[in-house]
Amino acid sequence: MKTATASAPSNIAFIKYWGAIDLDQVRPANASISMTLSECRSLTTVTFEPEVTSADEIALRDESGRPTTLSDAFRRGIERHLARIRERHQLVGRFSVITQNNFPAQAGLASSASGFAALAVAASSAANLEVDDIELSHLARISGSGSASRSVLGGFVEWPAGEDDASGYAKVLAPAEHWPLSDVIAIVETAGKEVSSRDGHRRAPSSPHFATRQALLPDRLDRVRAAIQERNLDDLGSVLELEAIELHLIAMSSQPAIFYWKPATLEVLAAVRRLRREGLSAWATMDAGANVHVICPSAQEAKVAEALAQVPGVLQVLRDRVGNGPQWHTDALP
Amino acid sequence: MKTATASAPSNIAFIKYWGAIDLDQVRPANASISMTLSECRSLTTVTFEPEVTSADEIALRDESGRPTTLSDAFRRGIERHLARIRERHQLVGRFSVITQNNFPAQAGLASSASGFAALAVAASSAANLEVDDIELSHLARISGSGSASRSVLGGFVEWPAGEDDASGYAKVLAPAEHWPLSDVIAIVETAGKEVSSRDGHRRAPSSPHFATRQALLPDRLDRVRAAIQERNLDDLGSVLELEAIELHLIAMSSQPAIFYWKPATLEVLAAVRRLRREGLSAWATMDAGANVHVICPSAQEAKVAEALAQVPGVLQVLRDRVGNGPQWHTDALP
Repeated sequence: MKTATASAPSNIAFIKYWGAIDLDQVRPANASISMTLSECRSLTTVTFEPEVTSADEIALRDESGRPTTLSDAFRRGIERHLARIRERHQLVGRFSVITQNNFPAQAGLASSASGFAALAVAASSAANLEVDDIELSHLARISGSGSASRSVLGGFVEWPAGEDDASGYAKVLAPAEHWPLSDVIAIVETAGKEVSSRDGHRRAPSSPHFATRQALLPDRLDRVRAAIQERNLDDLGSVLELEAIELHLIAMSSQPAIFYWKPATLEVLAAVRRLRREGLSAWATMDAGANVHVICPSAQEAKVAEALAQVPGVLQVLRDRVGNGPQWHTDALP
Repeated sequence: MKTATASAPSNIAFIKYWGAIDLDQVRPANASISMTLSECRSLTTVTFEPEVTSADEIALRDESGRPTTLSDAFRRGIERHLARIRERHQLVGRFSVITQNNFPAQAGLASSASGFAALAVAASSAANLEVDDIELSHLARISGSGSASRSVLGGFVEWPAGEDDASGYAKVLAPAEHWPLSDVIAIVETAGKEVSSRDGHRRAPSSPHFATRQALLPDRLDRVRAAIQERNLDDLGSVLELEAIELHLIAMSSQPAIFYWKPATLEVLAAVRRLRREGLSAWATMDAGANVHVICPSAQEAKVAEALAQVPGVLQVLRDRVGNGPQWHTDALP
């Protein structure tokens, strides 16, 4: 019996994963590129008892450490993850999992990327598996949350299109030290979204504009890779914004249509355009939700955060920045 | 010297004109279909003095009849209109124009459709021209406002794609009596928009999704024609909403991007979806702006208006319905 504790950060995608070739195998229609964050993290303790065959135990703590209720979707994802670790590594044994986010659940931030990345790291260690980054990214991905495959790595990360299962793991484009960028997150919605990302991925190909998006992405991916290489935020930012808008254009033109934006989303987008007119290099992006992530040089993080806090409808502003990926922790969650 | 006074209504497009083959000749990239309204009107008095060659006179009145300032764009449009009437009909003479809208200028509703339609009717009458509906639609169109070509006709109206100048006039698909529909207009913005429709038309083809839109439109036009024929509001409504969303998707993905929506636009769109869940047949559409037009059976107009007035950010609710097009008036504007 061994216990391991690890944390992993969330990430913010510059080029979005939206639409899957195979949703069960988490094979995305297109490659995505993200920046791994530093502050918004999931902390996970896993104990593995070899040869024990009773059911796995899964517990969730809220951000102050109190036990809280696990959603069915999150529970199923963890169960799938643990089943696939056993299957891939021919294990017999029982996992006990305790997981906790350091960001408030009601902040409306996706915790699946950080949660499944932390789980992959802690569970494989508890089971004494010799796994490299490739296998960690695989394990994180096959739990059902594609973006988790990027959160096992630090810095600027690319996850390729899902041509087959074997190539389905993320790679580092540049380490965190390469470019000190911040992600200032304007929280405008705290309730869960009406349509899950999973349903969004499923519906995406029903948009008449999906095929055009796929055709545009190779050029956009090249531009983002080059902008990261050259640390060119104007180039990165302009792709970032059109890419974020396009995810929502695809969602709004899916059948049936999906509307993730809230009124305050538009307030924040307008505020970011104002900040640029005032000389800041602030660029908006959004996941499949109403909150807005504003990417800027870390030297401008405080100014951007202050400005976003004044925007009508912004409930909370989180400040985060590029980070190094998972970490080991010596203290297990109680 | 003869004076004529006419009024013409605004119209709301079910299939949008967005993007031109030739903006100066007002040759649209695609056919559009609209419903001519009844209440929101422009009233125009035109005097024509044959053989007088001094400059035309143009005056604007606000909705309470007081002289008010004409925008440069509106003045240029009227001048172009009058020059083209003279050119097409080989006239020599001087026009004096007084025009007034019965809806508040600050309501944020486009007055070019009703304004240029009323001008075409009054000016051609003052000049003693024998014009039919085809020529009226032509005259309204070539003033520079494409949608004006639809407002010279009542009921449900189609304006074809601009293959050439000669075919560029609108036709009635069904008269107003055919289908008693209302348009409940939720005003959420009163300031002029930052990017004009003209610039929007110009930029539309720069959207990577414009070509897909063009490919989708023939089927959508068929569905709208059939829905009008069969008085099927569920069919019409579903096309109406995706078409309105798509105009804004094209705008938001144009280069540079155009954002017409305001936060309250999203509030109204969400409210309309709620109204449908509550059993009303209410469907949203938008022009190139932030205000939302809600199409419903006239029997539900009062209920829809009452509900929209409660939506946060709605400044005013106007109630309008399908109407018969231009009217003659005996009293000239003073």
